[in-house]
Amino acid sequence: VTFDIEQLRAVVGAQAVSTRAEDRFSYSHDAWPLAAVWRRRGLHPHTPEAVVRINGTLQAARLLRWASEQGVPVTPWGLGSSVTGAPLPLRGGVVADCSPMSGIVRLDDEDLTVTAKAGTLGGELEEALRARGLTLGHSPQSLHLSTVGGWVATRASGQFSSRYGSIEDLVIAFTVVLADGEAMTFPLSPRAAVGPDLRHLFIGAEGTLGLVTEVTLRVWPLASHQRLGAVRFVALDDGIEVLRLITRAGLRPHLVRLYDEDEARHLLRDDGFSGCVLLLGSEGAADIVAAEHAACLRICDAHGGAPLGAGPVEAWLDRRFDFSTVEERLHAPGGFAETIEVAHFWSGIGSLYRELKAALAPLADEVLCHFSHVYPQGTSLYVILLGQASDDAAAERALHALWDRAMAVCLEQGGTISHHHGIGMVRLPYLTDALGDTHELLRRVKCALDPAGVLNPGKLGLDGAGVAPVAARGEAEP
Amino acid sequence: VTFDIEQLRAVVGAQAVSTRAEDRFSYSHDAWPLAAVWRRRGLHPHTPEAVVRINGTLQAARLLRWASEQGVPVTPWGLGSSVTGAPLPLRGGVVADCSPMSGIVRLDDEDLTVTAKAGTLGGELEEALRARGLTLGHSPQSLHLSTVGGWVATRASGQFSSRYGSIEDLVIAFTVVLADGEAMTFPLSPRAAVGPDLRHLFIGAEGTLGLVTEVTLRVWPLASHQRLGAVRFVALDDGIEVLRLITRAGLRPHLVRLYDEDEARHLLRDDGFSGCVLLLGSEGAADIVAAEHAACLRICDAHGGAPLGAGPVEAWLDRRFDFSTVEERLHAPGGFAETIEVAHFWSGIGSLYRELKAALAPLADEVLCHFSHVYPQGTSLYVILLGQASDDAAAERALHALWDRAMAVCLEQGGTISHHHGIGMVRLPYLTDALGDTHELLRRVKCALDPAGVLNPGKLGLDGAGVAPVAARGEAEP
Repeated sequence: VTFDIEQLRAVVGAQAVSTRAEDRFSYSHDAWPLAAVWRRRGLHPHTPEAVVRINGTLQAARLLRWASEQGVPVTPWGLGSSVTGAPLPLRGGVVADCSPMSGIVRLDDEDLTVTAKAGTLGGELEEALRARGLTLGHSPQSLHLSTVGGWVATRASGQFSSRYGSIEDLVIAFTVVLADGEAMTFPLSPRAAVGPDLRHLFIGAEGTLGLVTEVTLRVWPLASHQRLGAVRFVALDDGIEVLRLITRAGLRPHLVRLYDEDEARHLLRDDGFSGCVLLLGSEGAADIVAAEHAACLRICDAHGGAPLGAGPVEAWLDRRFDFSTVEERLHAPGGFAETIEVAHFWSGIGSLYRELKAALAPLADEVLCHFSHVYPQGTSLYVILLGQASDDAAAERALHALWDRAMAVCLEQGGTISHHHGIGMVRLPYLTDALGDTHELLRRVKCALDPAGVLNPGKLGLDGAGVAPVAARGEAEP
Repeated sequence: VTFDIEQLRAVVGAQAVSTRAEDRFSYSHDAWPLAAVWRRRGLHPHTPEAVVRINGTLQAARLLRWASEQGVPVTPWGLGSSVTGAPLPLRGGVVADCSPMSGIVRLDDEDLTVTAKAGTLGGELEEALRARGLTLGHSPQSLHLSTVGGWVATRASGQFSSRYGSIEDLVIAFTVVLADGEAMTFPLSPRAAVGPDLRHLFIGAEGTLGLVTEVTLRVWPLASHQRLGAVRFVALDDGIEVLRLITRAGLRPHLVRLYDEDEARHLLRDDGFSGCVLLLGSEGAADIVAAEHAACLRICDAHGGAPLGAGPVEAWLDRRFDFSTVEERLHAPGGFAETIEVAHFWSGIGSLYRELKAALAPLADEVLCHFSHVYPQGTSLYVILLGQASDDAAAERALHALWDRAMAVCLEQGGTISHHHGIGMVRLPYLTDALGDTHELLRRVKCALDPAGVLNPGKLGLDGAGVAPVAARGEAEP
């Protein structure tokens, strides 16, 4: 241990600290597929020296003040459902487990806000809201595996974002502890023009600029009515055009997902299916929902869409928290699976899709694609990769090769290297290419807020003042 | 002059620099009502030592690099339509007039984006878009007086924000020059999770953190259909409740404005009118617009609303760029007028309205109020104050008294001190109370990005490293 563990115990309370190997090892793997291979191989390349269970803002402040004074890395951890390595302690030190901070602090049905502690499990929060006739609107596939604080840290986006927005649209305020232990709470407001909106410094910062302890989110009344429908298109380009025209028309169905032929076969459990499938859902007041859904279907019809009814959408809704397709591959020796999500404008998404599909096909048994979040300007593209290597070491090499090709193609095509999973460790080698000059801006902010470089050091290519940034995922290999 | 003017001429080109008194004086008053009184009195308490006309990013970079080296204040200026004193040079030095950077750089109808130089006049941009069947969706009352860069600097919000969003929702990317002359352009993306969204550092920073030179905005197809309607309520609380229920239902009419009795009389040009008036408008596809407008009217009906037809909305649309009510007062000696916009959650807005109205009534001849921007969580409150003092010095004192009372009441009530006009000079004394601990965060960012404190110094309570912040509007008095 590179720091005085007794001092740490004195600062945060002995019962909050563990240095037991099994505890430390359990924070050395998140849900990143590469970490799954490490787990299978018994490897722990990124293990903290101690784990501190954080029970509130005061304790987080004590920990960080001490860490900044002593130069000890502190990496925040929610529930470890990140698929990028974001909460793995690249520089060792302490993992700050935020999951003990759990529960609703305040729910306001008139103002439609809920305040929850950062470690609150998403699914539990959503269930509590539903019992009151409310919903978060935010429904990532990880809903039952991830925390409120994790959503803020990773810039999460849910499956119904086209109606409700992504986490940056849903967050009203939060309490954050800076590296020096200073805690601050952003003012609550429906909207303000009182200087720059500095909440955004911490949304998507992956714990490098502060540790979020409590979050106030918008909530929504549960919709009274819903209309669902699936549509088949022969050509994927027609499906993409329909996505574009739906958003262009100002419609906002909460569910818009387009599956390419390979993934449509999985979705429909029909190996002989040809074409692509669009899942559509609208919700809200009855007559508006009916009009919106009809408008969506008219656009589909004008582009050769053949209605498949609500069945495929209902089946998807039933299975949307099921990770078995990916997980099966991760349980077998040599098996590998990845999910890579990117985004592009309408003018670039078709080409990005084709180039990615072609580039990745030789590197995996299956390359499944869907478009899952739509905007008037463009859409996200989610790629699922499934493969089988000769052994686990070969599976690791296969995962690296997939990422290198995917990110190179994405950058060549002018796409965005992550739509909602974030950077973590897996995208670090590509981050500066993606951000260009604005990475230097991020580095300046980091030096101002965390000069000792103790908050999740190395992530986002950020260390303390005067330390050369991490630039390659390769560095972190066992 | 406190710096070497010949050096400045060498840096940016002699033809770009003016030190003539009439030029310097024309940048010493914006559209702040207090500045109007100064103009009437021939006072120029905040006059730059030189004016530099900025013709592009390179020239802005040269100016700022020199300014940082020499410690010369640089205050960005769009078209001076700010109503807060934001572009007035509190520390003297140079005003950087950005209006020569004008015009559309690129328009993409497929991706629905437009890139315009920062000095582009809003109304000209909107007209160019309309000629192509597109619109900004952003339509502030200042549309024909303000620039694209000014919107970003002040966190502007338009009259149709309930459908299209405010400027932070509409900006996709921009080029910004930092204090040391480094220029950077944010990556273009429909949405990204590639680190924190640092665009927000500059949106609403009022030119204290960077000078924006080129902006890419979302655009929208012009709506094919529109439904308009006004509704009268006896009690204002019923009208407010209707605003809340419209947003709670997930409806998004582009136009939602509720006028209290005093302002309704102006709006309707009917001195005998009693009650309050709601203006409603929906736009988009025909059947959805019809359903949405009907849903809004049903909510009105359930709360005792009496339909007044489309006439009052059409009249408002015709006059919405007319500032004569305010301007008439500013032309007469001793006359004063102010507009103060704040915001609150639904649970607080009624009380904030009543307390503000009561507190300000003794200080002005007329206190007119409307609610102009709605969110599921709350609404903005816009207060227009008209008065007549014995002379111009008394008018100045009256304006100060109005602000002191309004801001004190707003802070007491837990409201937001500005919804969309920003801070400028007029709200400086109340800024740290409004931001609480997070003002320190802003100060740290300022020190990291502008250690010499040259960008609009003094504004947002920010100077360079080691300089005590401006805390009072009073300091700036002639």
